[in-house]
Amino acid sequence: MKKADLSKVTPSKGASYPEPHNQAAKGRTTWPLTKMFGLAQFGVNRVELAPGSWSTQRHWHRHNDEAVIVISGELVLVTDDGEEVLGPGDCVGFKAGEQNAHHLQNRSDRVAVYFDVGGRDPYDVSTFPDIGLEARVRMELQFRPIDKK
Amino acid sequence: MKKADLSKVTPSKGASYPEPHNQAAKGRTTWPLTKMFGLAQFGVNRVELAPGSWSTQRHWHRHNDEAVIVISGELVLVTDDGEEVLGPGDCVGFKAGEQNAHHLQNRSDRVAVYFDVGGRDPYDVSTFPDIGLEARVRMELQFRPIDKK
Repeated sequence: MKKADLSKVTPSKGASYPEPHNQAAKGRTTWPLTKMFGLAQFGVNRVELAPGSWSTQRHWHRHNDEAVIVISGELVLVTDDGEEVLGPGDCVGFKAGEQNAHHLQNRSDRVAVYFDVGGRDPYDVSTFPDIGLEARVRMELQFRPIDKK
Repeated sequence: MKKADLSKVTPSKGASYPEPHNQAAKGRTTWPLTKMFGLAQFGVNRVELAPGSWSTQRHWHRHNDEAVIVISGELVLVTDDGEEVLGPGDCVGFKAGEQNAHHLQNRSDRVAVYFDVGGRDPYDVSTFPDIGLEARVRMELQFRPIDKK
């Protein structure tokens, strides 16, 4: 089977913001598909957003392009430009470096499903203007005995 | 409006294979969204596939990752491994360099909609084993008077 088998991916719940900023995204479940497909040029996540939940804190990426493709449900996209409702088949793209913070809110009473596609620059910085924080990925080498297989 | 406004994109019909190989993809309509969003790290196309049409000739990419996300309808994914039915919310990824040619066939009686995401290496080579062809992008500089705006 070539298509993503979600039963073979361990989903992650919520985001990893310091409290109390984590609360808003508690209803997010993410299935990371990038590694399963062996992709290296962009990443693909399937996301389910429970009623009342936000996708993330509002943010923009310094070095990574991003795109969102909605499968089902209704989501409110919030940017500096205002609000916009997204439904099945809608697509939004966010160019790296464009300082217009965005996120999605599920204000409806049913789960929404979307895919998030993102660039892979490990030196990306995410800026979260509403909570006055920015973040980068911390990388560290994890050693193990040589795998002889 | 941040989301893709399809009325502002000129869709392209079919593919650009030499005849007779072009016939199979005649029912494909593609809305290129990459430029509209200013993305540079990956490309995004919205595609509608009419009943009876193929997405492409079966192919694999030497240097570009690819992913397909299905919005609506039913598509048959054909690879060297066999056939598989894709429906709304399904996602498939194709790693650059993996020599397993793939395409989508709409064998149903209604239009199917999907998004195609792809890497941006301009030196990519697409190989089409069923028709014994391979293709690369031809690039040429097109000159115009300097735009002073």
